[in-house]
Amino acid sequence: MPRLLHHRLDPASRLARLMFAEYGVGADLEDIKPWIREPALLEINPAATVPIMIEPGEPPVVGTLAVLHAIEDRYAPTAVPGLFPSEPRARAEMWRLLEWVLVKLNDEVTRYILEEKIVKRDHRGATPEPSVLRVAKANLAEHLLYFNWLFATRQWIAGDTMTLADFALASHLSTLDYLGDVLWDTAPETRQWYARIKSRPAFRTLLNDRIAGMPAAAGYADLDF
Amino acid sequence: MPRLLHHRLDPASRLARLMFAEYGVGADLEDIKPWIREPALLEINPAATVPIMIEPGEPPVVGTLAVLHAIEDRYAPTAVPGLFPSEPRARAEMWRLLEWVLVKLNDEVTRYILEEKIVKRDHRGATPEPSVLRVAKANLAEHLLYFNWLFATRQWIAGDTMTLADFALASHLSTLDYLGDVLWDTAPETRQWYARIKSRPAFRTLLNDRIAGMPAAAGYADLDF
Repeated sequence: MPRLLHHRLDPASRLARLMFAEYGVGADLEDIKPWIREPALLEINPAATVPIMIEPGEPPVVGTLAVLHAIEDRYAPTAVPGLFPSEPRARAEMWRLLEWVLVKLNDEVTRYILEEKIVKRDHRGATPEPSVLRVAKANLAEHLLYFNWLFATRQWIAGDTMTLADFALASHLSTLDYLGDVLWDTAPETRQWYARIKSRPAFRTLLNDRIAGMPAAAGYADLDF
Repeated sequence: MPRLLHHRLDPASRLARLMFAEYGVGADLEDIKPWIREPALLEINPAATVPIMIEPGEPPVVGTLAVLHAIEDRYAPTAVPGLFPSEPRARAEMWRLLEWVLVKLNDEVTRYILEEKIVKRDHRGATPEPSVLRVAKANLAEHLLYFNWLFATRQWIAGDTMTLADFALASHLSTLDYLGDVLWDTAPETRQWYARIKSRPAFRTLLNDRIAGMPAAAGYADLDF
Protein backbone atom coordinates (compact mmCIF):
# COMPACT_ATOMS: atom_id res chain seq x y z
CA MET A 1 0.00 0.00 0.00
CA PRO A 2 1.46 3.42 -0.92
CA ARG A 3 2.22 5.83 1.89
CA LEU A 4 1.40 9.51 1.42
CA LEU A 5 3.17 12.22 3.39
CA HIS A 6 0.61 15.01 3.42
CA HIS A 7 -1.08 17.79 5.31
CA ARG A 8 -4.85 17.56 5.73
CA LEU A 9 -5.54 21.04 4.42
CA ASP A 10 -2.82 21.16 1.78
CA PRO A 11 -4.75 21.27 -1.51
CA ALA A 12 -2.09 19.39 -3.52
CA SER A 13 -2.16 16.58 -0.93
CA ARG A 14 -5.95 16.55 -1.16
CA LEU A 15 -5.67 16.21 -4.94
CA ALA A 16 -3.49 13.11 -4.49
CA ARG A 17 -5.94 11.67 -1.94
CA LEU A 18 -8.89 12.23 -4.29
CA MET A 19 -7.03 10.43 -7.09
CA PHE A 20 -6.24 7.47 -4.84
CA ALA A 21 -9.86 7.26 -3.67
CA GLU A 22 -11.25 7.62 -7.19
CA TYR A 23 -8.99 4.82 -8.41
CA GLY A 24 -9.89 2.61 -5.44
CA VAL A 25 -6.35 2.59 -4.02
CA GLY A 26 -5.93 2.64 -0.25
CA ALA A 27 -3.10 4.86 0.97
CA ASP A 28 -1.47 5.16 4.37
CA LEU A 29 -1.64 8.81 5.34
CA GLU A 30 1.16 10.36 7.38
CA ASP A 31 0.49 13.87 8.68
CA ILE A 32 3.25 16.40 8.12
CA LYS A 33 3.48 20.11 8.80
CA PRO A 34 5.83 20.98 5.94
CA TRP A 35 6.43 24.53 7.22
CA ILE A 36 8.16 23.11 10.33
CA ARG A 37 10.89 21.88 7.92
CA GLU A 38 11.84 18.85 9.99
CA PRO A 39 15.16 17.25 8.99
CA ALA A 40 13.42 13.98 8.07
CA LEU A 41 11.27 15.84 5.55
CA LEU A 42 14.14 17.94 4.16
CA GLU A 43 16.15 14.79 3.56
CA ILE A 44 13.43 13.45 1.28
CA ASN A 45 12.45 16.81 -0.18
CA PRO A 46 14.75 19.83 0.18
CA ALA A 47 11.85 21.96 -1.10
CA ALA A 48 9.94 21.00 2.09
CA THR A 49 6.63 20.48 0.30
CA VAL A 50 4.01 17.76 0.29
CA PRO A 51 2.60 15.52 -1.16
CA ILE A 52 5.25 12.79 -1.20
CA MET A 53 4.33 9.24 -2.19
CA ILE A 54 6.36 6.35 -0.82
CA GLU A 55 6.12 2.82 -2.14
CA PRO A 56 8.15 -0.13 -0.87
CA GLY A 57 11.39 -0.64 -2.78
CA GLU A 58 11.03 2.59 -4.75
CA PRO A 59 12.57 6.04 -4.27
CA PRO A 60 10.06 8.60 -2.92
CA VAL A 61 7.93 10.41 -5.48
CA VAL A 62 8.22 14.07 -4.56
CA GLY A 63 6.04 17.05 -5.42
CA THR A 64 2.64 17.68 -6.93
CA LEU A 65 3.41 17.01 -10.60
CA ALA A 66 5.49 13.90 -9.87
CA VAL A 67 2.83 12.45 -7.56
CA LEU A 68 -0.13 13.10 -9.82
CA HIS A 69 1.65 11.63 -12.84
CA ALA A 70 2.84 8.62 -10.80
CA ILE A 71 -0.67 7.89 -9.48
CA GLU A 72 -2.06 8.17 -13.01
CA ASP A 73 0.69 6.00 -14.52
CA ARG A 74 0.62 3.33 -11.82
CA TYR A 75 -2.98 3.19 -10.64
CA ALA A 76 -5.39 4.50 -13.29
CA PRO A 77 -7.69 1.70 -14.37
CA THR A 78 -7.15 0.79 -18.00
CA ALA A 79 -10.71 -0.35 -18.64
CA VAL A 80 -12.46 2.97 -17.95
CA PRO A 81 -11.43 6.51 -18.86
CA GLY A 82 -9.10 7.99 -16.23
CA LEU A 83 -8.87 11.57 -15.09
CA PHE A 84 -6.56 12.58 -17.97
CA PRO A 85 -8.70 12.84 -21.13
CA SER A 86 -7.22 11.17 -24.18
CA GLU A 87 -8.66 13.58 -26.74
CA PRO A 88 -6.06 16.33 -27.42
CA ARG A 89 -8.40 19.35 -27.11
CA ALA A 90 -9.92 18.12 -23.87
CA ARG A 91 -6.45 17.30 -22.58
CA ALA A 92 -5.13 20.80 -23.32
CA GLU A 93 -8.14 22.37 -21.60
CA MET A 94 -7.58 20.10 -18.59
CA TRP A 95 -3.93 21.22 -18.28
CA ARG A 96 -4.90 24.88 -18.73
CA LEU A 97 -7.36 24.77 -15.86
CA LEU A 98 -5.20 22.53 -13.68
CA GLU A 99 -2.47 25.16 -14.00
CA TRP A 100 -5.00 27.90 -13.31
CA VAL A 101 -5.88 26.23 -10.01
CA LEU A 102 -2.45 24.95 -8.92
CA VAL A 103 -0.61 28.14 -9.82
CA LYS A 104 -2.95 31.14 -10.12
CA LEU A 105 -5.64 30.32 -7.57
CA ASN A 106 -2.99 29.05 -5.17
CA ASP A 107 -0.85 32.12 -5.68
CA GLU A 108 -3.62 34.66 -5.31
CA VAL A 109 -5.83 32.99 -2.71
CA THR A 110 -5.12 29.63 -1.07
CA ARG A 111 -1.48 30.08 -0.03
CA TYR A 112 -2.28 33.32 1.80
CA ILE A 113 -5.28 31.93 3.62
CA LEU A 114 -3.35 28.81 4.71
CA GLU A 115 -0.37 30.90 5.80
CA GLU A 116 -2.49 33.25 7.88
CA LYS A 117 -4.92 30.75 9.37
CA ILE A 118 -2.91 27.53 9.69
CA VAL A 119 0.85 28.09 9.48
CA LYS A 120 0.78 31.08 11.84
CA ARG A 121 -0.78 28.94 14.59
CA ASP A 122 2.68 27.39 14.96
CA HIS A 123 4.42 30.75 15.34
CA ARG A 124 4.20 31.86 18.94
CA GLY A 125 2.31 35.13 19.20
CA ALA A 126 1.54 35.40 15.48
CA THR A 127 -2.04 36.20 14.48
CA PRO A 128 -3.72 36.26 11.09
CA GLU A 129 -3.22 39.57 9.33
CA PRO A 130 -6.71 40.91 8.42
CA SER A 131 -5.47 42.94 5.44
CA VAL A 132 -3.90 39.85 3.83
CA LEU A 133 -7.05 37.81 4.37
CA ARG A 134 -9.13 40.61 2.92
CA VAL A 135 -7.11 40.71 -0.30
CA ALA A 136 -7.12 36.91 -0.61
CA LYS A 137 -10.91 36.84 -0.22
CA ALA A 138 -11.37 39.60 -2.78
CA ASN A 139 -9.20 37.58 -5.16
CA LEU A 140 -11.28 34.48 -4.44
CA ALA A 141 -14.43 36.38 -5.38
CA GLU A 142 -12.86 37.18 -8.77
CA HIS A 143 -11.87 33.55 -9.32
CA LEU A 144 -15.40 32.40 -8.44
CA LEU A 145 -16.82 34.75 -11.08
CA TYR A 146 -14.64 33.05 -13.67
CA PHE A 147 -15.56 29.55 -12.48
CA ASN A 148 -19.26 30.51 -12.48
CA TRP A 149 -18.88 31.70 -16.04
CA LEU A 150 -17.28 28.38 -17.06
CA PHE A 151 -19.86 26.27 -15.21
CA ALA A 152 -22.73 28.18 -16.81
CA THR A 153 -21.99 26.33 -20.06
CA ARG A 154 -20.13 23.23 -18.92
CA GLN A 155 -20.95 20.22 -16.82
CA TRP A 156 -17.35 19.93 -15.61
CA ILE A 157 -14.66 22.57 -15.48
CA ALA A 158 -12.76 21.47 -18.58
CA GLY A 159 -15.75 20.30 -20.60
CA ASP A 160 -18.27 17.47 -20.73
CA THR A 161 -16.33 14.94 -18.68
CA MET A 162 -14.83 15.04 -15.22
CA THR A 163 -11.05 15.44 -15.28
CA LEU A 164 -8.14 16.00 -12.96
CA ALA A 165 -8.82 19.75 -13.21
CA ASP A 166 -12.13 19.20 -11.39
CA PHE A 167 -10.30 17.39 -8.61
CA ALA A 168 -7.72 20.17 -8.42
CA LEU A 169 -10.37 22.85 -8.08
CA ALA A 170 -12.34 20.73 -5.60
CA SER A 171 -9.17 20.30 -3.51
CA HIS A 172 -8.62 24.02 -3.24
CA LEU A 173 -12.27 24.93 -2.68
CA SER A 174 -12.65 22.19 -0.05
CA THR A 175 -9.70 23.61 1.89
CA LEU A 176 -11.13 27.11 1.66
CA ASP A 177 -14.58 25.77 2.58
CA TYR A 178 -13.19 24.00 5.65
CA LEU A 179 -11.93 27.40 6.79
CA GLY A 180 -15.28 29.05 6.01
CA ASP A 181 -13.96 31.28 3.25
CA VAL A 182 -16.20 30.33 0.33
CA LEU A 183 -19.32 32.50 0.05
CA TRP A 184 -21.44 29.95 -1.75
CA ASP A 185 -24.40 32.31 -2.06
CA THR A 186 -22.35 34.41 -4.47
CA ALA A 187 -21.44 31.44 -6.64
CA PRO A 188 -24.53 29.43 -7.62
CA GLU A 189 -23.03 27.72 -10.69
CA THR A 190 -19.87 26.71 -8.84
CA ARG A 191 -21.93 25.57 -5.85
CA GLN A 192 -23.98 23.27 -8.08
CA TRP A 193 -20.80 21.72 -9.48
CA TYR A 194 -19.29 21.43 -5.99
CA ALA A 195 -22.41 19.67 -4.66
CA ARG A 196 -22.08 17.17 -7.50
CA ILE A 197 -18.39 16.43 -6.96
CA LYS A 198 -18.76 16.46 -3.16
CA SER A 199 -21.27 13.62 -3.29
CA ARG A 200 -18.85 11.28 -5.08
CA PRO A 201 -17.65 8.40 -2.89
CA ALA A 202 -14.03 9.53 -3.42
CA PHE A 203 -14.79 12.76 -1.59
CA ARG A 204 -15.80 11.13 1.71
CA THR A 205 -12.24 10.84 2.92
CA LEU A 206 -11.82 14.63 2.78
CA LEU A 207 -15.13 15.37 4.47
CA ASN A 208 -14.08 13.39 7.55
CA ASP A 209 -10.91 15.47 8.03
CA ARG A 210 -10.58 17.37 11.27
CA ILE A 211 -7.75 19.65 12.36
CA ALA A 212 -7.05 19.85 16.11
CA GLY A 213 -8.18 23.20 17.48
CA MET A 214 -9.65 24.28 14.14
CA PRO A 215 -13.11 22.80 13.58
CA ALA A 216 -14.55 22.74 10.07
CA ALA A 217 -16.91 25.56 9.15
CA ALA A 218 -20.64 24.80 9.19
CA GLY A 219 -21.71 22.98 6.05
CA TYR A 220 -18.24 21.64 5.26
CA ALA A 221 -19.30 17.99 5.42
CA ASP A 222 -22.94 18.46 4.41
CA LEU A 223 -23.85 17.26 0.95
CA ASP A 224 -26.74 19.73 1.09
CA PHE A 225 -24.95 22.97 1.99
CA MET B 1 3.39 25.58 -38.78
CA PRO B 2 2.40 26.25 -35.15
CA ARG B 3 2.33 29.82 -33.95
CA LEU B 4 3.64 30.63 -30.49
CA LEU B 5 2.54 33.71 -28.58
CA HIS B 6 5.48 34.37 -26.29
CA HIS B 7 7.76 36.87 -24.65
CA ARG B 8 11.46 36.58 -25.41
CA LEU B 9 12.56 36.56 -21.79
CA ASP B 10 9.63 34.60 -20.37
CA PRO B 11 11.19 31.32 -19.20
CA ALA B 12 8.10 29.20 -19.88
CA SER B 13 7.98 30.54 -23.45
CA ARG B 14 11.69 29.72 -23.79
CA LEU B 15 10.98 26.18 -22.61
CA ALA B 16 8.40 25.78 -25.39
CA ARG B 17 10.85 27.21 -27.94
CA LEU B 18 13.59 24.81 -26.83
CA MET B 19 11.20 21.87 -27.22
CA PHE B 20 10.19 22.98 -30.72
CA ALA B 21 13.85 23.40 -31.72
CA GLU B 22 14.91 20.08 -30.18
CA TYR B 23 12.12 18.30 -32.05
CA GLY B 24 12.95 20.06 -35.31
CA VAL B 25 9.64 21.91 -35.52
CA GLY B 26 9.61 25.43 -36.88
CA ALA B 27 7.30 27.81 -35.03
CA ASP B 28 6.10 31.28 -35.89
CA LEU B 29 6.93 33.49 -32.94
CA GLU B 30 4.63 36.35 -32.01
CA ASP B 31 5.96 38.75 -29.37
CA ILE B 32 3.58 39.59 -26.54
CA LYS B 33 3.99 41.61 -23.40
CA PRO B 34 1.53 39.67 -21.25
CA TRP B 35 1.62 42.26 -18.43
CA ILE B 36 0.02 44.84 -20.75
CA ARG B 37 -3.10 42.61 -20.67
CA GLU B 38 -4.29 43.52 -24.14
CA PRO B 39 -7.90 42.55 -24.90
CA ALA B 40 -6.77 40.24 -27.72
CA LEU B 41 -4.65 38.26 -25.26
CA LEU B 42 -7.29 38.20 -22.50
CA GLU B 43 -9.79 36.82 -24.95
CA ILE B 44 -7.57 33.80 -25.58
CA ASN B 45 -6.26 33.55 -22.03
CA PRO B 46 -8.00 35.35 -19.17
CA ALA B 47 -4.96 34.50 -17.01
CA ALA B 48 -2.91 36.79 -19.31
CA THR B 49 0.07 34.45 -19.47
CA VAL B 50 2.23 33.02 -22.23
CA PRO B 51 3.13 30.65 -23.87
CA ILE B 52 0.11 30.03 -26.06
CA MET B 53 0.35 27.67 -29.03
CA ILE B 54 -1.94 28.18 -32.00
CA GLU B 55 -2.39 25.63 -34.76
CA PRO B 56 -4.72 26.02 -37.75
CA GLY B 57 -8.17 24.59 -37.14
CA GLU B 58 -7.52 23.91 -33.45
CA PRO B 59 -8.45 25.86 -30.32
CA PRO B 60 -5.45 27.65 -28.76
CA VAL B 61 -3.35 25.63 -26.33
CA VAL B 62 -2.96 27.87 -23.29
CA GLY B 63 -0.45 27.84 -20.45
CA THR B 64 2.83 26.17 -19.65
CA LEU B 65 1.59 22.68 -18.76
CA ALA B 66 -0.85 22.52 -21.67
CA VAL B 67 1.77 23.71 -24.17
CA LEU B 68 4.55 21.41 -23.01
CA HIS B 69 2.26 18.38 -23.01
CA ALA B 70 0.84 19.31 -26.42
CA ILE B 71 4.31 19.71 -27.97
CA GLU B 72 5.36 16.37 -26.49
CA ASP B 73 2.16 14.60 -27.61
CA ARG B 74 2.10 16.09 -31.09
CA TYR B 75 5.75 16.58 -32.05
CA ALA B 76 8.05 14.26 -30.08
CA PRO B 77 9.76 11.87 -32.48
CA THR B 78 8.68 8.30 -31.88
CA ALA B 79 11.95 6.72 -33.02
CA VAL B 80 14.24 8.31 -30.41
CA PRO B 81 13.68 8.95 -26.71
CA GLY B 82 11.93 12.27 -26.15
CA LEU B 83 12.35 14.68 -23.27
CA PHE B 84 9.94 12.76 -20.99
CA PRO B 85 11.76 9.64 -19.76
CA SER B 86 9.72 6.45 -19.95
CA GLU B 87 11.25 4.75 -16.90
CA PRO B 88 9.05 5.56 -13.85
CA ARG B 89 11.85 6.60 -11.45
CA ALA B 90 13.48 8.88 -13.99
CA ARG B 91 10.07 10.29 -14.88
CA ALA B 92 9.25 11.11 -11.25
CA GLU B 93 12.63 12.80 -10.79
CA MET B 94 12.05 14.81 -13.96
CA TRP B 95 8.67 16.05 -12.68
CA ARG B 96 10.13 16.84 -9.26
CA LEU B 97 12.82 19.06 -10.73
CA LEU B 98 10.58 20.56 -13.39
CA GLU B 99 8.26 21.67 -10.58
CA TRP B 100 11.25 22.93 -8.59
CA VAL B 101 12.18 25.19 -11.48
CA LEU B 102 8.74 26.24 -12.73
CA VAL B 103 7.33 26.90 -9.26
CA LYS B 104 10.04 27.36 -6.63
CA LEU B 105 12.83 28.97 -8.65
CA ASN B 106 10.28 31.11 -10.47
CA ASP B 107 8.58 32.11 -7.24
CA GLU B 108 11.73 32.96 -5.34
CA VAL B 109 13.92 34.39 -8.10
CA THR B 110 12.88 34.76 -11.74
CA ARG B 111 9.49 36.44 -11.36
CA TYR B 112 10.95 39.20 -9.18
CA ILE B 113 13.87 39.89 -11.47
CA LEU B 114 11.62 40.02 -14.53
CA GLU B 115 9.12 42.25 -12.74
CA GLU B 116 11.78 44.71 -11.61
CA LYS B 117 13.94 44.77 -14.72
CA ILE B 118 11.50 44.18 -17.59
CA VAL B 119 7.88 44.79 -16.61
CA LYS B 120 8.64 48.05 -14.79
CA ARG B 121 10.14 49.53 -17.97
CA ASP B 122 6.54 49.85 -19.17
CA HIS B 123 5.37 51.70 -16.07
CA ARG B 124 6.14 55.37 -16.48
CA GLY B 125 8.52 56.52 -13.78
CA ALA B 126 8.95 53.10 -12.16
CA THR B 127 12.48 51.93 -11.40
CA PRO B 128 13.80 48.56 -10.22
CA GLU B 129 13.63 48.26 -6.44
CA PRO B 130 17.15 47.38 -5.23
CA SER B 131 15.95 45.59 -2.08
CA VAL B 132 13.76 43.21 -4.12
CA LEU B 133 16.61 42.48 -6.54
CA ARG B 134 18.95 41.85 -3.61
CA VAL B 135 16.63 39.25 -2.08
CA ALA B 136 16.02 37.57 -5.45
CA LYS B 137 19.77 37.31 -6.05
CA ALA B 138 20.39 35.91 -2.57
CA ASN B 139 17.69 33.30 -3.28
CA LEU B 140 19.34 32.51 -6.63
CA ALA B 141 22.64 31.87 -4.83
CA GLU B 142 20.87 29.29 -2.63
CA HIS B 143 19.28 27.61 -5.65
CA LEU B 144 22.66 27.45 -7.42
CA LEU B 145 24.14 25.68 -4.39
CA TYR B 146 21.48 23.02 -4.71
CA PHE B 147 21.95 22.68 -8.48
CA ASN B 148 25.74 22.45 -7.99
CA TRP B 149 25.18 19.68 -5.48
CA LEU B 150 23.01 17.77 -7.95
CA PHE B 151 25.40 18.28 -10.87
CA ALA B 152 28.34 17.08 -8.79
CA THR B 153 26.99 13.54 -9.17
CA ARG B 154 24.81 13.73 -12.26
CA GLN B 155 25.36 14.41 -15.91
CA TRP B 156 21.91 15.98 -16.27
CA ILE B 157 19.69 17.48 -13.63
CA ALA B 158 17.33 14.53 -13.24
CA GLY B 159 19.89 11.78 -13.84
CA ASP B 160 21.89 10.23 -16.64
CA THR B 161 19.83 11.48 -19.56
CA MET B 162 18.74 14.91 -20.64
CA THR B 163 15.08 15.59 -19.88
CA LEU B 164 12.54 18.37 -19.96
CA ALA B 165 13.76 19.42 -16.49
CA ASP B 166 17.11 20.38 -18.04
CA PHE B 167 15.33 22.54 -20.59
CA ALA B 168 13.23 24.13 -17.84
CA LEU B 169 16.29 25.03 -15.79
CA ALA B 170 18.14 26.22 -18.89
CA SER B 171 15.19 28.46 -19.77
CA HIS B 172 15.25 30.17 -16.40
CA LEU B 173 19.02 30.46 -16.17
CA SER B 174 19.25 31.79 -19.73
CA THR B 175 16.77 34.55 -18.88
CA LEU B 176 18.70 35.42 -15.72
CA ASP B 177 21.96 35.23 -17.67
CA TYR B 178 20.63 37.61 -20.32
CA LEU B 179 20.05 40.10 -17.51
CA GLY B 180 23.52 39.48 -16.06
CA ASP B 181 22.28 37.98 -12.80
CA VAL B 182 24.04 34.60 -12.79
CA LEU B 183 27.40 34.67 -11.01
CA TRP B 184 28.92 31.75 -12.87
CA ASP B 185 32.16 31.87 -10.89
CA THR B 186 30.22 30.76 -7.82
CA ALA B 187 28.62 27.82 -9.61
CA PRO B 188 31.27 25.70 -11.40
CA GLU B 189 29.19 22.49 -11.62
CA THR B 190 26.13 24.30 -12.92
CA ARG B 191 28.30 26.29 -15.34
CA GLN B 192 29.72 23.09 -16.80
CA TRP B 193 26.21 21.72 -17.35
CA TYR B 194 25.04 25.05 -18.80
CA ALA B 195 27.98 25.13 -21.24
CA ARG B 196 26.96 21.66 -22.42
CA ILE B 197 23.28 22.46 -22.92
CA LYS B 198 24.05 25.89 -24.38
CA SER B 199 26.06 24.34 -27.21
CA ARG B 200 23.16 22.21 -28.41
CA PRO B 201 21.75 23.34 -31.76
CA ALA B 202 18.32 23.83 -30.16
CA PHE B 203 19.75 26.58 -27.98
CA ARG B 204 20.83 28.84 -30.85
CA THR B 205 17.41 30.38 -31.22
CA LEU B 206 17.55 31.72 -27.65
CA LEU B 207 21.09 33.03 -27.98
CA ASN B 208 20.07 35.29 -30.86
CA ASP B 209 17.33 37.00 -28.82
CA ARG B 210 17.61 40.71 -28.29
CA ILE B 211 15.32 43.01 -26.33
CA ALA B 212 15.04 46.63 -27.51
CA GLY B 213 16.82 48.92 -25.09
CA MET B 214 18.08 46.05 -22.97
CA PRO B 215 21.21 44.48 -24.46
CA ALA B 216 22.25 41.00 -23.33
CA ALA B 217 24.88 40.82 -20.63
CA ALA B 218 28.44 40.01 -21.72
CA GLY B 219 28.90 36.28 -22.28
CA TYR B 220 25.20 35.60 -22.86
CA ALA B 221 25.70 34.27 -26.37
CA ASP B 222 29.25 32.95 -25.92
CA LEU B 223 29.59 29.18 -25.77
CA ASP B 224 32.82 29.78 -23.86
CA PHE B 225 31.67 32.07 -21.06
